Amino acid sequence: MKGTVLYGARDVRFEERDAPKIVKPTDAIIKLSATCVCGSDLWPYRGLQPMEGPQQMGHEYCGVVAEVGSDVKTVKPGQFVVGSFCLSDNTCPHCRFGFQSSCVQREFMTGAQAPFARVPLADGTLVPTVEMPADDLIPSLLATSDVLGTGWYAADAARVTPGCTAVVVGDGAVGLMGVLAAKQMGAARIIAMSRHKQRQELALEYGATDIISERDEQGVARIKELTKGIGADAVLECVGTQQSMRQAIQSARPGAMIGYVGVPHGVQLDGQALFFSQTGMLGGPAPVRRFLPHLMDLVLQRKIIPGKVFDLQLPLADVAEGYRAMDERRAIKTLLRP
Amino acid sequence: MKGTVLYGARDVRFEERDAPKIVKPTDAIIKLSATCVCGSDLWPYRGLQPMEGPQQMGHEYCGVVAEVGSDVKTVKPGQFVVGSFCLSDNTCPHCRFGFQSSCVQREFMTGAQAPFARVPLADGTLVPTVEMPADDLIPSLLATSDVLGTGWYAADAARVTPGCTAVVVGDGAVGLMGVLAAKQMGAARIIAMSRHKQRQELALEYGATDIISERDEQGVARIKELTKGIGADAVLECVGTQQSMRQAIQSARPGAMIGYVGVPHGVQLDGQALFFSQTGMLGGPAPVRRFLPHLMDLVLQRKIIPGKVFDLQLPLADVAEGYRAMDERRAIKTLLRP
Repeated sequence: MKGTVLYGARDVRFEERDAPKIVKPTDAIIKLSATCVCGSDLWPYRGLQPMEGPQQMGHEYCGVVAEVGSDVKTVKPGQFVVGSFCLSDNTCPHCRFGFQSSCVQREFMTGAQAPFARVPLADGTLVPTVEMPADDLIPSLLATSDVLGTGWYAADAARVTPGCTAVVVGDGAVGLMGVLAAKQMGAARIIAMSRHKQRQELALEYGATDIISERDEQGVARIKELTKGIGADAVLECVGTQQSMRQAIQSARPGAMIGYVGVPHGVQLDGQALFFSQTGMLGGPAPVRRFLPHLMDLVLQRKIIPGKVFDLQLPLADVAEGYRAMDERRAIKTLLRP
Repeated sequence: MKGTVLYGARDVRFEERDAPKIVKPTDAIIKLSATCVCGSDLWPYRGLQPMEGPQQMGHEYCGVVAEVGSDVKTVKPGQFVVGSFCLSDNTCPHCRFGFQSSCVQREFMTGAQAPFARVPLADGTLVPTVEMPADDLIPSLLATSDVLGTGWYAADAARVTPGCTAVVVGDGAVGLMGVLAAKQMGAARIIAMSRHKQRQELALEYGATDIISERDEQGVARIKELTKGIGADAVLECVGTQQSMRQAIQSARPGAMIGYVGVPHGVQLDGQALFFSQTGMLGGPAPVRRFLPHLMDLVLQRKIIPGKVFDLQLPLADVAEGYRAMDERRAIKTLLRP
């Protein structure tokens, strides 16, 4: 079997490697219907994250169960499944509290940019569909595995409520999914911060009511202008830089929550400034598993089409081009078909 | 009239000064029934906060309305009132959102350690009682003005819910009020961090179920031990140092909120560490006005006795001794009677 391996900065290869096997009795092996490249894959791809040798890539996945370990009870071969990029047992106290991404048995998925992948903690992680979904739903189901689930968590952590005004900082795939989530949660006004025409269009399609292309002080001034000087009721921070975090905090009204899902790189927060801004913060790796059944339902009922975020589809063998296109911002997100 | 003026480090004087007058038509003058010394008064008293010349002190107050400006409609001379240390119009968007401490017209109360005080924005700030309260209720009513309202906000921001496990970091007056608030909100387990016998006893009286005297790693280890390794559902941070904030974050379970009300002094938060801890944060000056009617009701119905937090009562003229006793930790909180 061939799979995707990252060797170093901008050196991603589709090469022969062992097919995955059941290692623990709680594992499943799935045959991927589709997988994709994540914005977070670009950190090591760009050499911005230390690596310990070659790394199997891919943590977003959906497909058909090929084999299960002897302890697996809730999924069986032949079923179509989606799972979160965070593997969780879904029974520990953190899972039951709705924070499966902090499961006591947590592992992060890997090796999914391949025709087959091993999914540990299959019972807790995988959510099966009742029947085989139509092929045109595959991109949207794949999106629930991470990018939609993460944007959804940003909106949930930011406490988007019906009628509220939400600001989405970041127009990457997660930010666009944040717009979709805020719309689904009933936000009356969704202000998307974006300076790329194609992404602005998709944001509008997903429910953004206003687009702001300015950044920093100008961006904050525009938000204050649009909200009569009040600031936003909820802010989704989907980037993870000091600049985007400052933008988020300054866009929020006192008492608003910031849901932050961009992994912070070099972000420092001054306690006293945060105190007097009186903005709340909740972030972290998204507990996608909490939302997965609901999100899959919305897709299967054709109420949302998160799969539009994939503006480039390639055969899995062309995975290197998929990374390049995203790195060069020629693509928002690349879907790969084995 | 004599009032309290701070001249510099440990130089607090009770001296002759002009009696307050109506300055704006929205002002009221109140005759104080009682006032007190706040933990936050100790920052400038200890020389740890820059001052621009002599400063009239006191921001916690309750008493009888003596005079009102021509625009004041909701209170009248002769009524007993309590107000928040944050003066607010209670009509602006931030007030209506429940964050009166970020009112667009916000001012901070000052000059209340005196027989009479001017209260700006009287309509928005003051809450009258139906009748003159019994004298023994005065300390508890005074407590609602800041220290109880602040502890209550910590519990509210930390999202204390019935049956939950709450940790209170800090055994000052606010921390003790946080214990009382968590109890009122139905927390099943309240872990108070305290190493002072007298404060431990008051914490237990207010509803603490467990006392932890250890700090830092040992303190966190004890909390993990008491919560079966899970961490607390809600954490009230009532100190404001780097050490206490670290204690709070490490005591929280993933997904828990930290309500922080100790004004942070030198606190820096690392974005990535906070992200992966997956703890939420909401703090700031407490919007006491939001809670005030409810808290006054609880006191008037004798359901809570927050006034026990005053373990030293002095005539107002002895205010300097009141500061000294708190500075030297001989008193938790000093009540002053004009």
